Amino acid sequence: MKTIAFVLYPGLTPLDLIGPLQVLASLRHADPSFEATVVAESLDPVHSDIPLSLTAERTFDDVPAPYALVVPGGQAGTLRALTNERLLDYVRSAAARAEVTASVCTGSLILGAAGLLEGREATTHWSFLEALRAFGAMPVSRRWVDEGKILTAAGVAAGIDMALHLAARFTSEDVAKFLQFGIEYDPEPPFGGLDWSATPRELFTTMATASIREELSGAPELGARLAAHL
Amino acid sequence: MKTIAFVLYPGLTPLDLIGPLQVLASLRHADPSFEATVVAESLDPVHSDIPLSLTAERTFDDVPAPYALVVPGGQAGTLRALTNERLLDYVRSAAARAEVTASVCTGSLILGAAGLLEGREATTHWSFLEALRAFGAMPVSRRWVDEGKILTAAGVAAGIDMALHLAARFTSEDVAKFLQFGIEYDPEPPFGGLDWSATPRELFTTMATASIREELSGAPELGARLAAHL
Repeated sequence: MKTIAFVLYPGLTPLDLIGPLQVLASLRHADPSFEATVVAESLDPVHSDIPLSLTAERTFDDVPAPYALVVPGGQAGTLRALTNERLLDYVRSAAARAEVTASVCTGSLILGAAGLLEGREATTHWSFLEALRAFGAMPVSRRWVDEGKILTAAGVAAGIDMALHLAARFTSEDVAKFLQFGIEYDPEPPFGGLDWSATPRELFTTMATASIREELSGAPELGARLAAHL
Repeated sequence: MKTIAFVLYPGLTPLDLIGPLQVLASLRHADPSFEATVVAESLDPVHSDIPLSLTAERTFDDVPAPYALVVPGGQAGTLRALTNERLLDYVRSAAARAEVTASVCTGSLILGAAGLLEGREATTHWSFLEALRAFGAMPVSRRWVDEGKILTAAGVAAGIDMALHLAARFTSEDVAKFLQFGIEYDPEPPFGGLDWSATPRELFTTMATASIREELSGAPELGARLAAHL
């Protein structure tokens, strides 16, 4: 069985996890050798950055060597995760054997903290893009960056695009298109795509800086390295 | 406080709920008179159609009169919900007082079962579109259909587009665009949008028919009405 394990941790952004999970959980209908699961430190409900708790299906110990690993991002919760040694150990050891380790949004900071991005091209949420340099990565402004063993996606909703890419990589373009019909992903943002000339950068940088100061007070060196690149 | 209540029930498709919730939960940053919450029959973890359980923040009784209601869809779980009187009672009574009652995907079938779609234009997941006639609605193939008090969205991922529309309706286009930057919703499906000339209709109809037979065995008249329109 090829297990695609999604990592759940406190405070994450659920859409980072659910977007790609909703796509890849259906992969088994097209190829029964695949399964998707959600792993966490324990099977207790985990709070998130929205008024909803999520409960994993398995623990880290239950799935030591997944075929693929997907690490979602978030805001404060993801910054806290950068010093969560139990989580980083799991990501590091699973990634060592996985076919691919993927991240969504600031999940790439977790890959960076686990030492997986050194010398690689990678992406993340636009507001944290330059902060990837703190982990020796080369930031790339792209919807997703596929470096083979490491695959990083841009912010939140980019996880859906990345998951379709991954489905095609694991099986075929036809299968990915079938999954796309399942979630009726035919995007029609009411005001069009993002207007990158009107990025609310200052506001996001202010929020990110405050969040780094608060959540990484116990790791001031890391906090300073991240903040230096915002 | 203007409360936007998202309805959680067993077996639903989490992306139907999380997509719009991730957008609208941030509305309070732009306008503190709004809050988003998740309501369910109880505060126990609820299983879904993917390997993940979700826990609501409040019960139906806690939020009898939300400003807005959002009803997600799904597959088997949503068909079962069509005969869940406790859920239908809540949707009916909340909708009677709400500014808007919205659905994502087959969540519109729940609105239909609650008697809210009679004589209205509405949409749903493409594979169930004609089934809306079973509830006296006029099916429309559109990303979302805004009839004022009732707002229905197409399948799964359409909930994100609908939520941005709703954010603009509640506040302003500028606020909606700000929220769009938050979730970096700048869609780039790897193989483009859906090719509607290549819809896997037969396969989806077969699955839906089997699901209706199984989940609505206790309500054969409703099951037959739905199946007749697939």
